Amino acid sequence: MSLSEIALLVKGDVSGDPDLKISGVSEIQNGKPGTITFLGNPLYGKYLDNTAASAVFVSKKTDLKDHDGIIVTDPQLAMAKTLSVFYPDKKPPGIIHPNTFIHHHAKVGVDVTIDPGTVIESGAIIGDGSWIGPNVFIGANISMGTNCKIYANTVLYHDIVMGDKVIIHAGAVIGSDGYGFVNDSNRQVKIPQVGSVLIGDNVEIGSNSTIDRATIGNTIIGDMCKLDNLVHIAHNVKIGRGCLITAQVGIAGSAEVGDFCTFAGQAGVVPHVRIGDNSIITGKSGVTKSLSGNEIYGGFPARPIKEQHKKDAILIEVSRMRKQLDQLIKG
Amino acid sequence: MSLSEIALLVKGDVSGDPDLKISGVSEIQNGKPGTITFLGNPLYGKYLDNTAASAVFVSKKTDLKDHDGIIVTDPQLAMAKTLSVFYPDKKPPGIIHPNTFIHHHAKVGVDVTIDPGTVIESGAIIGDGSWIGPNVFIGANISMGTNCKIYANTVLYHDIVMGDKVIIHAGAVIGSDGYGFVNDSNRQVKIPQVGSVLIGDNVEIGSNSTIDRATIGNTIIGDMCKLDNLVHIAHNVKIGRGCLITAQVGIAGSAEVGDFCTFAGQAGVVPHVRIGDNSIITGKSGVTKSLSGNEIYGGFPARPIKEQHKKDAILIEVSRMRKQLDQLIKG
Amino acid sequence: MSLSEIALLVKGDVSGDPDLKISGVSEIQNGKPGTITFLGNPLYGKYLDNTAASAVFVSKKTDLKDHDGIIVTDPQLAMAKTLSVFYPDKKPPGIIHPNTFIHHHAKVGVDVTIDPGTVIESGAIIGDGSWIGPNVFIGANISMGTNCKIYANTVLYHDIVMGDKVIIHAGAVIGSDGYGFVNDSNRQVKIPQVGSVLIGDNVEIGSNSTIDRATIGNTIIGDMCKLDNLVHIAHNVKIGRGCLITAQVGIAGSAEVGDFCTFAGQAGVVPHVRIGDNSIITGKSGVTKSLSGNEIYGGFPARPIKEQHKKDAILIEVSRMRKQLDQLIKG
Repeated sequence: MSLSEIALLVKGDVSGDPDLKISGVSEIQNGKPGTITFLGNPLYGKYLDNTAASAVFVSKKTDLKDHDGIIVTDPQLAMAKTLSVFYPDKKPPGIIHPNTFIHHHAKVGVDVTIDPGTVIESGAIIGDGSWIGPNVFIGANISMGTNCKIYANTVLYHDIVMGDKVIIHAGAVIGSDGYGFVNDSNRQVKIPQVGSVLIGDNVEIGSNSTIDRATIGNTIIGDMCKLDNLVHIAHNVKIGRGCLITAQVGIAGSAEVGDFCTFAGQAGVVPHVRIGDNSIITGKSGVTKSLSGNEIYGGFPARPIKEQHKKDAILIEVSRMRKQLDQLIKG
Repeated sequence: MSLSEIALLVKGDVSGDPDLKISGVSEIQNGKPGTITFLGNPLYGKYLDNTAASAVFVSKKTDLKDHDGIIVTDPQLAMAKTLSVFYPDKKPPGIIHPNTFIHHHAKVGVDVTIDPGTVIESGAIIGDGSWIGPNVFIGANISMGTNCKIYANTVLYHDIVMGDKVIIHAGAVIGSDGYGFVNDSNRQVKIPQVGSVLIGDNVEIGSNSTIDRATIGNTIIGDMCKLDNLVHIAHNVKIGRGCLITAQVGIAGSAEVGDFCTFAGQAGVVPHVRIGDNSIITGKSGVTKSLSGNEIYGGFPARPIKEQHKKDAILIEVSRMRKQLDQLIKG
Repeated sequence: MSLSEIALLVKGDVSGDPDLKISGVSEIQNGKPGTITFLGNPLYGKYLDNTAASAVFVSKKTDLKDHDGIIVTDPQLAMAKTLSVFYPDKKPPGIIHPNTFIHHHAKVGVDVTIDPGTVIESGAIIGDGSWIGPNVFIGANISMGTNCKIYANTVLYHDIVMGDKVIIHAGAVIGSDGYGFVNDSNRQVKIPQVGSVLIGDNVEIGSNSTIDRATIGNTIIGDMCKLDNLVHIAHNVKIGRGCLITAQVGIAGSAEVGDFCTFAGQAGVVPHVRIGDNSIITGKSGVTKSLSGNEIYGGFPARPIKEQHKKDAILIEVSRMRKQLDQLIKG
């Protein structure tokens, strides 16, 4: 592709040679001749001068210096679009391997690929164009939408409803029993977990993450949510649309999360709280009370980040007070 | 079932129509006609007025207002018992799938179910009535008690001893090598992990949790312990009876935990400490020293929660001191 | 083996009877007659008097009291070497099970063992002497070195390069998509993850850990790194040689870690920072800025442990100031 063709694709403006041939994408610090790279995070500006990449996506023309490039609103988005063209998704072959175990009451759609060792139970529905990797378990009465991608060794318990274009990475477990026990004269009695899990369209779930089924009712993951690896979502949690939940986050039972919230790594949420739309929860924070939303929250207990900073400032304040107090005492 | 029959089951007192027909259980906020719900957490009291459920388990008669219901000591326990009646555990078929790989020196009990793709090694013993899901690995010389339930894609390494009625959720790994290395002139030398894992009766282990085998001796999970998802138990840890260990908790090597302890989410324990009986460790806490027990501990380093609160109070104290000091300085 | 033969093996000095017969290794607190134990951690000194073990590895002769034993520089290292002799690694049989699914364009070396249910895709290379457990997935174009050990239900996505003697424990997932999304007018757009993962020689990876492939370029785990269970390594992370990364640690995207660093349990690292050689990151710490190395860091944000202790000291200082201020106010 020429630089001008890429500019058209990403709705950007060429700076330099519009006919420059680009054959791939590379990292700015390991730039390769003939490829385009991008300057997203300003931290990486230092690599620009010496990059061997032939062109650069930037958001400001001045960043280009004497490189060829394309000016766009969002260089990362431009890179994402360019990658999709140079490395298109491989179409799965649409073949069901003979060494699979598909119950005769399961319903498999058109153009479905199922790899060896996979077990599909009675009443399960696999939507058209879906790809199910090897050694996957799909429990009874699961309803899976179209064009889903379920990687190797994933386990989906019974009675789960999934939308279209859901991606589940390897080793994730969806629909296991919620953690529900009640003490009966020093015996831990298991509360039967008879609810379900609903997963919206365009959801992506990371490797080895776990999402428990509801005790009664539903655990819900809204459309377009993106979960990273080793995330834990407990029973009866309800998550809105477009949330980003990064690695090792845990959300406890019956918590409710609004739309377009972001959770940074290793954050946690206690049971039964509600987190408003557009909340950003910083890394390692612990949400212990309901939060109204549209704000950045941090710390444990999590509070608006401004207050959290105030708390940190107190420590500096104390050493100032120490000096003033010493002067007063000296007289 | 009639309301009076349910009252008999849960040892409660009917308030309202004893002949009311109940056909299931529902959530209070999504109550369904013909079902019984429960008021456990007072947070959910606000849903009582408008619930469409036909009856409610409560602990105080006044909570019922004009609803039919049953008064019990523990509404959550009553609900657990009622769920067990309406949604009884499905009995597995007791069939060993032909596509399984069972060593001729393994010993499989009566009424055992084994699903496709599962591998059972030499010397393993599977107790009567157990159900082994698909694509499970059961290593050599494992001794599994009766009526165990091992979900899909679980991995049990060799030489593990398990009690009766153990439930292991999908993707859990039991008996992998403990994390033991020793530095020998800048080479990390692996310490062979030749010990075992003992798991008591009625233990439940969550999805994708990991329990390592001992270096020498045993890693021990006592009777009736309940582990949530993504929990890590290191080599040579010893856990007493009836402990509740919630999601993403990590307990490091050779730590000892007494009976009936509770760990809230994402708590951690350093190696070699001892935690006394009936300890409650709050979420995200880090236990760095031995704790005597019978108390709630929080923070990092974890201390009795009263002291932890004192630490938080200091921050409020500082701003009061600031004002007083300003007045003194002004004169 | 006699005590003198063991002393030769571990380069130590016998104290007591050199002809004493030793037939195994035991824990000091559960010592068994006829075995040797070791005193590594001084915490365990209290068990020495009553241990039933016949001999003890110690670092100081005086620690032995009246026990037979061997004096060595590092008792733990001596124990590791002795365990390797008494419990040598079992040689896998070198048999490829007929119920495996190996693409005809995969290249399997000499003396390779492959257990049932395992799938190996086109272009994969399995080095000589490697053992692949049951129900493993090995993606296309993976290059695996010699004498690797891949435990049950592990998933390796495509295009990964692994060195020799790599051990991967059960349920680990290597090469899943990095967590990369970019917002395009309230739609989360997936950034294609087209990079790779490089894993050095002698690396060990714990159960259910996850290592993501790079967006572009490589995620790198250096030679001799040892990862514990449930560790998360994000896309484009680069880790040097000989690092120890314990359970439930998370390292976010594009972070760089030097050689011989240690991360204690549940620590976290934000994206794009650089951690210098020989850093020790204490448990539950959160690294938010680059660290120069050769030091112990703790807290959140992580700073040199000396400063972290200073912060804790402030809290004690405040109560002293409170008293002084009260006296001043009283006059």
